[in-house]
Amino acid sequence: MAHGFALLGERVELTVIGNTGDDLELHGLQISPDLDTVMYTLAGLANETTGWGVTGETWSAAGMLETYGEPTWFKLGDRDLATHIARTARLRASERLTTATGALAQALGVAATILPMSDEQVRTKIRTTDGWLDFQEYFVRHGHADEVLEVRFDGIDDAHATAEVVDAIESADLIVVAPSNPFLSVAPILALRGVLDALHAAAAQTIAVSPVVGGGALRGPAADIMRSMGTAPGATGIAEHYATRYPGLVDVLLIDNADAGEFDAVNAHGIMPAMADIVIPDESRRRQLAREILRICGLATD
Amino acid sequence: MAHGFALLGERVELTVIGNTGDDLELHGLQISPDLDTVMYTLAGLANETTGWGVTGETWSAAGMLETYGEPTWFKLGDRDLATHIARTARLRASERLTTATGALAQALGVAATILPMSDEQVRTKIRTTDGWLDFQEYFVRHGHADEVLEVRFDGIDDAHATAEVVDAIESADLIVVAPSNPFLSVAPILALRGVLDALHAAAAQTIAVSPVVGGGALRGPAADIMRSMGTAPGATGIAEHYATRYPGLVDVLLIDNADAGEFDAVNAHGIMPAMADIVIPDESRRRQLAREILRICGLATD
Repeated sequence: MAHGFALLGERVELTVIGNTGDDLELHGLQISPDLDTVMYTLAGLANETTGWGVTGETWSAAGMLETYGEPTWFKLGDRDLATHIARTARLRASERLTTATGALAQALGVAATILPMSDEQVRTKIRTTDGWLDFQEYFVRHGHADEVLEVRFDGIDDAHATAEVVDAIESADLIVVAPSNPFLSVAPILALRGVLDALHAAAAQTIAVSPVVGGGALRGPAADIMRSMGTAPGATGIAEHYATRYPGLVDVLLIDNADAGEFDAVNAHGIMPAMADIVIPDESRRRQLAREILRICGLATD
Repeated sequence: MAHGFALLGERVELTVIGNTGDDLELHGLQISPDLDTVMYTLAGLANETTGWGVTGETWSAAGMLETYGEPTWFKLGDRDLATHIARTARLRASERLTTATGALAQALGVAATILPMSDEQVRTKIRTTDGWLDFQEYFVRHGHADEVLEVRFDGIDDAHATAEVVDAIESADLIVVAPSNPFLSVAPILALRGVLDALHAAAAQTIAVSPVVGGGALRGPAADIMRSMGTAPGATGIAEHYATRYPGLVDVLLIDNADAGEFDAVNAHGIMPAMADIVIPDESRRRQLAREILRICGLATD
């Protein structure tokens, strides 16, 4: 979704606030998978084949790390590894994650501002029948195959949204909640001290893009998790989720044309539904959806 | 030289004590070039083309690190990088450099024991007409082209030889001073608290292998540095160096057949000369020289 807005070029001044609850430390390196996915995508370096990591990747270091007995379940290509090395070097030199993230993105030619939600550590933990797992253990190591019984965000009570995040929200002309997993990717950001206050203080409209189409997730385990959490995995469930847990937050919910039948049900939750083709596998459709969102929110007429 | 002894197989229980004065931190990673060169060589992974680093190397991370504005003058291949990542992770987890070095070498199938001279930081500094440089700045960044005016080992007064180093020296059947640069590679080890005492306490003979042949260094800038330090770069100069600075340390100096003319001059410094073909570019000649050293020192008859 961020890519779509980035593809609109200079007419959009884009700031992406990324979840850092998925971050992990591996081989002594600080890894921020959500921030990096955004960064690589906006830099045109995303690996479209794997759906994660960098294009044109090699795997030499991974083989040696395996030989050295380092964990191998989280695969890091050589180019990707450089990102984690550079980030970790900056953090160890007492740079803020916000500054480090900005510097790396700028070096890759990303015009948008990518902001970690916080400079402080928050770690998403997932309870499955195996007990509590680190997020990436659940997501990557176990291939998000386990039923999610509970989610918690370790460190959330001591962490704060950065000044940059609060300012970006409060000064925005439009706030878009990405079609991301509401429980795993959006919830940590909204749970962070300062974010909901900033959203309520913001003058801009907030439009959420549904992460489900026709009862299935656009990507990842969102549908299964919604079911586990007692919410039907559909546009109505998403509306109910946002309306119930974050009253007054979402003004507009953009649902897929395929979910037109849920228009009234969404509306009944006090959120204005809008419809579009929200399946955006390629650049052209991403750009088109971003433009459509600007139109829906009265920020563009073309 | 260590490779030659390793190639003799189980008849030699080999311990290599490596200089860590050349170590550096780059990209937040702890790099021990001397230890790694020994490790890669003994593991059969040395890159024979470059003379440093790992065979079958790729350079993907280096390109990204350059994009991220990280220093590029010390080239780290992807496989090599994995070594530094694994080492740094272990050190950050409070492992001793000795333990980390042993674990990495073992993982690569090295049968010999590779010991850093110390777990404490020593940094070789080189004074040139540009002022004081870090060792690798002098050696790699400036291509060891500058005249060496002075050498010092920062941290040497606070550092100690490890118990493993002292024990290896004291319990050895033979001590071989490798044909390494006496001022840059051997001197930091000998300057370390505990090493000379252990060498003097050791019952074993000490044989030094000359790093110069026919007035030129076997490798690197040894000859130029000897000249700067006021020592003629030949077998006699090496004998004078060891006899003067470390009296009673070296029992035998192995010089090249080409330097037969210096036999008496070496002898005049109170060090017994021995001769062999000490130019050992390949495995067969390395193995042969190691066997020859055992014969010279009365430890082998075949």
